[in-house]
Amino acid sequence: MTRPLAFQPWMTAVQARMEAALARHLPPADALPARLHDAMRYATLGGGKRVRPLLVFAAGELAGAADEALEVPAAAVEMIHAYSLIHDDLPCMDDDSLRRGKPTVHVEFDYATALLAGDALQAQAFLVLAGTPAAADAASQLRMVELLAQAAGSRGMCGGQQIDLDAVGRRLDEPELEMMHIHKTGALIRASVMLGALCGAPLAAAEGARLDHFAKCAGLLFQVVDDILDATADTATLGKTAGKDQKDDKPTYVSILGLGQARIKARALEEEALAALAPFGERGQRLAALARFIAGRSF
Amino acid sequence: MTRPLAFQPWMTAVQARMEAALARHLPPADALPARLHDAMRYATLGGGKRVRPLLVFAAGELAGAADEALEVPAAAVEMIHAYSLIHDDLPCMDDDSLRRGKPTVHVEFDYATALLAGDALQAQAFLVLAGTPAAADAASQLRMVELLAQAAGSRGMCGGQQIDLDAVGRRLDEPELEMMHIHKTGALIRASVMLGALCGAPLAAAEGARLDHFAKCAGLLFQVVDDILDATADTATLGKTAGKDQKDDKPTYVSILGLGQARIKARALEEEALAALAPFGERGQRLAALARFIAGRSF
Repeated sequence: MTRPLAFQPWMTAVQARMEAALARHLPPADALPARLHDAMRYATLGGGKRVRPLLVFAAGELAGAADEALEVPAAAVEMIHAYSLIHDDLPCMDDDSLRRGKPTVHVEFDYATALLAGDALQAQAFLVLAGTPAAADAASQLRMVELLAQAAGSRGMCGGQQIDLDAVGRRLDEPELEMMHIHKTGALIRASVMLGALCGAPLAAAEGARLDHFAKCAGLLFQVVDDILDATADTATLGKTAGKDQKDDKPTYVSILGLGQARIKARALEEEALAALAPFGERGQRLAALARFIAGRSF
Repeated sequence: MTRPLAFQPWMTAVQARMEAALARHLPPADALPARLHDAMRYATLGGGKRVRPLLVFAAGELAGAADEALEVPAAAVEMIHAYSLIHDDLPCMDDDSLRRGKPTVHVEFDYATALLAGDALQAQAFLVLAGTPAAADAASQLRMVELLAQAAGSRGMCGGQQIDLDAVGRRLDEPELEMMHIHKTGALIRASVMLGALCGAPLAAAEGARLDHFAKCAGLLFQVVDDILDATADTATLGKTAGKDQKDDKPTYVSILGLGQARIKARALEEEALAALAPFGERGQRLAALARFIAGRSF
């Protein structure tokens, strides 16, 4: 058995692999309508931390899945994520002009093209996931499509965005904020983990539940750290407008708990995530390293 | 064997059946976030001619499929259609305030909620299609998801919308207009027919190709008739703003061919659609009646 890669080289390898996989799974830039495909590729390629694909690959490693198979759900979740960023940045939503250090899609192209590019990326995610073999059988692959649709929809990511909309200008308490994030970012992060696992050997029910608990903690951890960074890092470091949540009077873990308590919360979520992985032993090491990385991420 | 229903009672029965199926396959209005679910239901229920579900059911009859199974792809394609109308009506697209005789979603709710309701309806379509058994096996059902994603995406419906955007203010010729409509409305209509057929007994390759040719003709026919109605009917009859294409200087079959030639074109497409069905004999009668209905529709 080959010795597994250390975390940093592994992360760099997955990111490079995903750049190529996404480029392949997106329609070519010269296919008609070229402007739409250009916008889809602009929004998806050449940037991004690929946190969700990293979770797919790390969970796949736990379940013994092949890298070729993992590319498929990883590309699909990243397309869903990219579409959500396009729509989230639109003038009718957060009205942001900078993303990953570049002009947002509606600024670089136009409002209508940005809307369509988001819509088409969502469809492309399901096209890739339904049309490219990744799981051992069609029933498991269909289950992957179902999980992704649940995570993306009104009781997942879109639902979280709506809770966010409904909350602007209102003071949320911590449970309400948690409910928002469990939907808004947590659902897709959980789906990333579960889809990665579905590419490998079937897990026992108790193992699946433990993995799901890890994913739930990791999703919240990611959000708490995101809120801390929004409050403490500068725009150049973030690649998006810093301090925006505060300016928009959006509820965050920092605004509700204060910076010190938000940091303590992040540490507690990290511990809980790692504890959920402990029974997997060696198999869970990659996911554990990823959780630690998310907790301390300086990107 | 029971005698098949005459066309009008059949149509009414399918429409009523679909109203109930859609109500069941959409998240309940009181599930959180209620405003989002309310908007999704507002956009989908209580109106619409259900042309795409009718095509699913008529194609399913040709393939001997069960009504219970057909509800699943019919609900999915109608949700994709409903989402496309929400986004199409947005201020950044066609900026329309009336649809099916009611205020459009962004007027009744707000811009951001309309965006999210469309996004969530697309996800819901894939959730229903992946999560509810309809085809004989998982592989066929996965194929249904793939076909729907293709039809909805950048080389289907969204691509047609982009071609439409790119064409505003420019003079298209008839082949360019046809290319636009083959994507914009034709892709989803073809998918409706093919998904209905996939719920039944497998078709021979030649039969599938013939059915697909029928669907292509029916899709274009639908659009030509739509253009004729936009130019000749009033707003109350249409349930949406009449004469809007002309006002927006959008290319239509009427603007390019003139009304008389557009009517001749519609008749030719109807004949071609019916000819493609002829070899199916009795089994194709329902689809044939539906094509004739689309050709002469006064709704």
